[in-house]
Order: sequence, then C-alpha cells, then structure tokens
Amino acid sequence: MFKRETKDFINIDPLQTGGKLTEEARQALLEWGDGYSVCDFCTTGRLDEIKTPPIHDFIHNQLPKFLGCDVARVTNGAREAKFAVMHSLAKKDAWVVMDENCHYSSYVAAERAGLNIALVPKTDYPDYAITPENFAQTIEETKKRGEVVLALITYPDGNYGNLPDVKKIAKVCSEYDVPLLVNGAYAIGRMPVSLKEIGADFIVGSGHKSMAASGPIGVMGMKEEWAEIVLRRSEKYKNKEVELLGCTARGATIITLMASFPHVRERIKRWDEEVEKARRFAAEMEKLGIKQLGDNPHNHDLMFFHAEVLYEISKKAKGGRFFLYRELKSRKIHGIKPGLTRYFKLSTYGLSDEEVDYVLNAFKEIIEKYS
Amino acid sequence: MFKRETKDFINIDPLQTGGKLTEEARQALLEWGDGYSVCDFCTTGRLDEIKTPPIHDFIHNQLPKFLGCDVARVTNGAREAKFAVMHSLAKKDAWVVMDENCHYSSYVAAERAGLNIALVPKTDYPDYAITPENFAQTIEETKKRGEVVLALITYPDGNYGNLPDVKKIAKVCSEYDVPLLVNGAYAIGRMPVSLKEIGADFIVGSGHKSMAASGPIGVMGMKEEWAEIVLRRSEKYKNKEVELLGCTARGATIITLMASFPHVRERIKRWDEEVEKARRFAAEMEKLGIKQLGDNPHNHDLMFFHAEVLYEISKKAKGGRFFLYRELKSRKIHGIKPGLTRYFKLSTYGLSDEEVDYVLNAFKEIIEKYS
Repeated sequence: MFKRETKDFINIDPLQTGGKLTEEARQALLEWGDGYSVCDFCTTGRLDEIKTPPIHDFIHNQLPKFLGCDVARVTNGAREAKFAVMHSLAKKDAWVVMDENCHYSSYVAAERAGLNIALVPKTDYPDYAITPENFAQTIEETKKRGEVVLALITYPDGNYGNLPDVKKIAKVCSEYDVPLLVNGAYAIGRMPVSLKEIGADFIVGSGHKSMAASGPIGVMGMKEEWAEIVLRRSEKYKNKEVELLGCTARGATIITLMASFPHVRERIKRWDEEVEKARRFAAEMEKLGIKQLGDNPHNHDLMFFHAEVLYEISKKAKGGRFFLYRELKSRKIHGIKPGLTRYFKLSTYGLSDEEVDYVLNAFKEIIEKYS
Repeated sequence: MFKRETKDFINIDPLQTGGKLTEEARQALLEWGDGYSVCDFCTTGRLDEIKTPPIHDFIHNQLPKFLGCDVARVTNGAREAKFAVMHSLAKKDAWVVMDENCHYSSYVAAERAGLNIALVPKTDYPDYAITPENFAQTIEETKKRGEVVLALITYPDGNYGNLPDVKKIAKVCSEYDVPLLVNGAYAIGRMPVSLKEIGADFIVGSGHKSMAASGPIGVMGMKEEWAEIVLRRSEKYKNKEVELLGCTARGATIITLMASFPHVRERIKRWDEEVEKARRFAAEMEKLGIKQLGDNPHNHDLMFFHAEVLYEISKKAKGGRFFLYRELKSRKIHGIKPGLTRYFKLSTYGLSDEEVDYVLNAFKEIIEKYS
C-alpha cells in the first residue's frame, strides 16, 4: 500500500490547498471508485447527458450558472480545456497572445495546437503585473505579424497570485475582435468569478486545483456562439463532440467534483476572509524581513515571497539550501519545494487561524534558530 | 450523497467487468483522493518522474515490461492516447486506416487530428471478422488516394469481442511501411499482450476498462523510434512533453492503476480460465436458442448475442422491449442496455462460476416465464 506521508501535514503548496477533498467527495470516491462506474446508466453515449448520477443537471444547469456562462462542459483538466479551445480555433500560421505570467501548460497547449505564441510582458520586480496597456500593445504588434485567433489571460497566475484587471483586458480584446480565454485554475472554486461579468469568451477551471475534486478534472465555460465550433460533432457519430473525444472525465473524478460542489459554492462566499487571512500572513512575514511580491496589498491566497534572510542562512546552514525544507518538514509543514529559500510561493487557502499562526511561528523560530 | 444503485449487482456490462477496483486500489483512493496529491514530491515537473509515490518505477520499468514495449506513458485514457499518436503523426490530407469494428473514439480521435479515415470492412454475419487480406486491400487502395500515416487495429473490438490475427496484420502494415497502433483497451489487463510479440508500433490500453483502475486513465506503449515524435518536448519548457500537455493522469487515477497492478499482472495469467468460462457461458446460451456471434468458439469474455427468442417475447411482453432489462434488474443483474433484446453484448470477466450459473439461470427463467 502506497502511503501519503504528507497526509496529516499542514500543506501550504498552492497546488494542494484548494484540492483537498470534502468529506462528501471522500465518500463518493468509495462509492464510485470502480472504473467507469458513472457510465452504468449512460443511455445516449454522452457523459454530460447521464441522468443517474445527476451529471446532466450538474453540467447543463449548475455549472453554467456557477461560471456565469452559456454552455459548460467538464474536461480532463484546465490544460485539456485550454487545448480544446486552442485546437478548435487554430489556423495555419495564426497566433495566440497570452500573458507572460501564464502557466506552462497554456504555452504547451498552444505549441500542441500549432499556434505561434506572443507573450504580453509583465512589469518588473516587485509587481510582475500584466497591464491592459501591455496587453493591447502586444495584440497590436502581433496583428501585424499574422492573424490572432485567441488571447489568454491567467487569473490569477500561479506564480505571484496576481489578479490582473481582467475586465479591462476583455474590453481590449473585444476592441481588437480577438476572443479571450480566462484561465481561472486558481480562481474558480476559490473566489467568485463570472465569465459574463468579465466579458470574455471562454473560462477554464481546475477541479483538483481549486474545486475540492480528485484529479484530473477541469471545467470549461463559453459563450453560446462558440459552442458550435468548440463542441462541433463527429460526422459519423452525430452525438459525439470531437474536441472532447466523445467523453472526458468518465470516472470517479466527476463524482468528486459534483459531491464537493455544494460546499464549493458556499465557500467562495467567504473569499473576503481568505484574502484577509492572506494579507495578515503577508504582513507578518514582512515583519520577519520576508517580502511579498506581486499585487500588494494582495488579493489572493497564493503568494510569492522574497526572503533574503533565509537565503543568507542557507549559505551557512547545515544541509545548505535544503535547510528550510527540512526545518518545515520537522514541523509537519509541507509545500515549499526542497532547495528553495530565497524565492518561494505558498498558499494560506483553507488554513485555520491557528494553522496560519503555527506556520508563521515556524518561520520565526527557524530564523531565530540560525541568527 | 450520490448512491450507486448497481454496487451490489452482478454487473455484466463489458465496460465494467475489468474496471472493478481491487481492495488495494480502494484503499489507495482514500489515501490519495485529494486533488493533486501525487504531486507532493514532484521535483522535475513531470508526472512520470515522480519517485514518491513510485510513479517513475511504474512508468519506466514495470509498464514497458508489461506491455512489451520500449517506452511507456500513462494518459487520460485509451482514446487520449490514440489521439496523441494520431495528432503527432498527422499531415495535411493524410489518411489513417482502421478496422470497421473500431471503437467510436478511434474514429473521433482521427477526426480531431484532421486525418482522412479509411475503414477496413468486416466480414458479414455471423463472424464480423477483420481479416489480414481485407486490411492489406484497404491499405493498398488508400495508398492510391494519399499518404497513409497510421493504421489502427482494435484488439479485441468492443462489440463482438473478436481477436483478429494481429500479428499477420502487423506484418501487412510493415510490408506497406505503415506504422500500426493496437487498441488493446479490452485486452491489456485482462489477457497477455506484448507489443514486441505482435510486431506493431504502438499499443494503448485503458485503466478503467481493463486494469482495475479508477477512471479516466490509460496506458500507451511504443517502439523507441517513435518516442522522439510522439513524446517531443516543448521548445520553451524543455522538460515538458507537448503531446501530453506536460502531465496527464495527475491525480488519484494513477495511484489506483499502480495499486491494482500487482493483481492485474497476476490475473492475466489466468486468462485461459476466463476464455473457458466465456465459452461455457456461450454454449449454455446457445441451448436457450441465443446465438453467440463473432469468433466462435470465442476467445474473449466480451460476447455479442443474437436472441430471436427474447425479441419475440418483447413484442408481446408487458413493458415491451424493456422487459429484459427489468427482469434482469429484479434479479440484481446489470449491464444489458435498457431496451435491447435481440442483439446485446455482455462480459463474464471476473464472475465466479456461481455468478455465471446465476446469470444463465436468469435467462432461462425469463424465457420460461414468457413462453
């Protein structure tokens, strides 16, 4: 039996804090773990049309409402959703414009779709911001090089947790007549997001990253007008959506997403508290000489820190640059990659106040120990 | 909480019999259910390189040995693996040749990859066989229409459970210099299969269909020479495999596949018993006037039946064509689609002798009841 060593740790890896299963999802896993169990009562050959369990209602009613979109689907993950959109819109020699803070999988999805990629530059240290002005300029320049079939904005990005002015960026894209995809892998399921309010064309989210689901699973929402392109049907199998290869998350993953959904829908209402918690954490870290980069004051639980004090310690400490990882591990705190000391990201999402204090105190103790 | 009504039923749906979790996989689900849990100790950013849990050993050592291939990966499913291969090999106006018994997802994957599709015709009732001669002829004819970049054979197909002479078909493809992909979604994890012994180029399997894993997850094996094409790297993110979008089954699915694997490796050694059981079942059905189509004697647990006797009953029975479904349901047998009576498929895989007798007796009782 493979044991998960970190199971009773405080996990501050941004990848993990929003994907922790609810008790409902945990029970659903046991009930629906077997292979293709959700397909027992599939009658039309389409995952999204299964009525028992109530996948149809989830995908066609609850999810579009939640995402503020016309049409929604589940996918095998956010990256698979991004690829599906890019692959549907791709043309020979065409371009996609995306923010420089984008997740690597956005870039790789564009490569897979055969698109040329233009990156909107981020501003310098310490903000690393993606501005509407830079977005406009990159679209403007790229249009001179060829057709821009899509733009992508990461909201927030997975490095700094920055939330760009996505409404303004959507307006810019709309002015240039370029459809915009919002990568909300770290937003959807944590904070309120609505495609309609943003005014973009596509939105994708991650079940395992931010919706308390077992991976891999993602969600994809779009404006009605795109459905006939992205969800085009097979010529031979009239019911099958080509870009989804018929069905996507055909297993226990969809059930965990659905089982956690009532909880997720509630938790996003407490987003203000999460932001407050993150800001408090960042403020306390500043007192230890550890600077929070990116949006400041910060608007998301994912934070990037610059810690010269820890870097200096690592030069002399036993274990070198691995000292921080080991010190945290001995305190049952997991989530900062082994070897990182000067720059690292973490997330306070879902931590109790006591856990936040415990983590802060750990940093304080570690710094004191080596000073 | 979503309940799975069929959980304590005898499930003879071919989709379900090979995907039932082992006890080890069930425990692993609970341990690793959280979101991205397998990524806790990811150091290189690649799923297949994770050492804790031992994914690296599984993908780079155990899986290639099991599949008889040089290089293996896990994917989000067999269809996603087929698409990855097709998308990598696709060229403008090129063709893929596949057997007419292919799964719809093979066809849809080819459509998604922008390939023209030529189907190798099956022989007529009652065999529905794919012969090497027909395979050769279709390749021959298709070559006149354009470049054939790939051939695909379904081994066995998901309708009749026919096992074509895949070695001869591989030889045919090799003579025409066309790479061959073996879709073993109903083979790998049930019966011994080796890419090397077959002499083909690619092999794909399904974790949730035949490897006692929680879906969706698949496996993909290939000859060394194809790795640089199908597993080509991103230009910017040098470690990321473009066709896999970096990582694929990044969640609990991979853990269930690994947890069940020792059991799966053992169970394929008892394949003769499974074939024997299927043949016994078919012989008893014949006694009830229900004819088993496809390969006969049969070589696989997935069987297709032609039941005029049940069809005649459905014309008069209360509930019409749904009578069979209801009668089986009242006996806690699940897996024949509601409304089917004349033609249907089922699987005896993993059923105990008592369960086989129970199902046979159910058919007998039902026929007697309405006669």
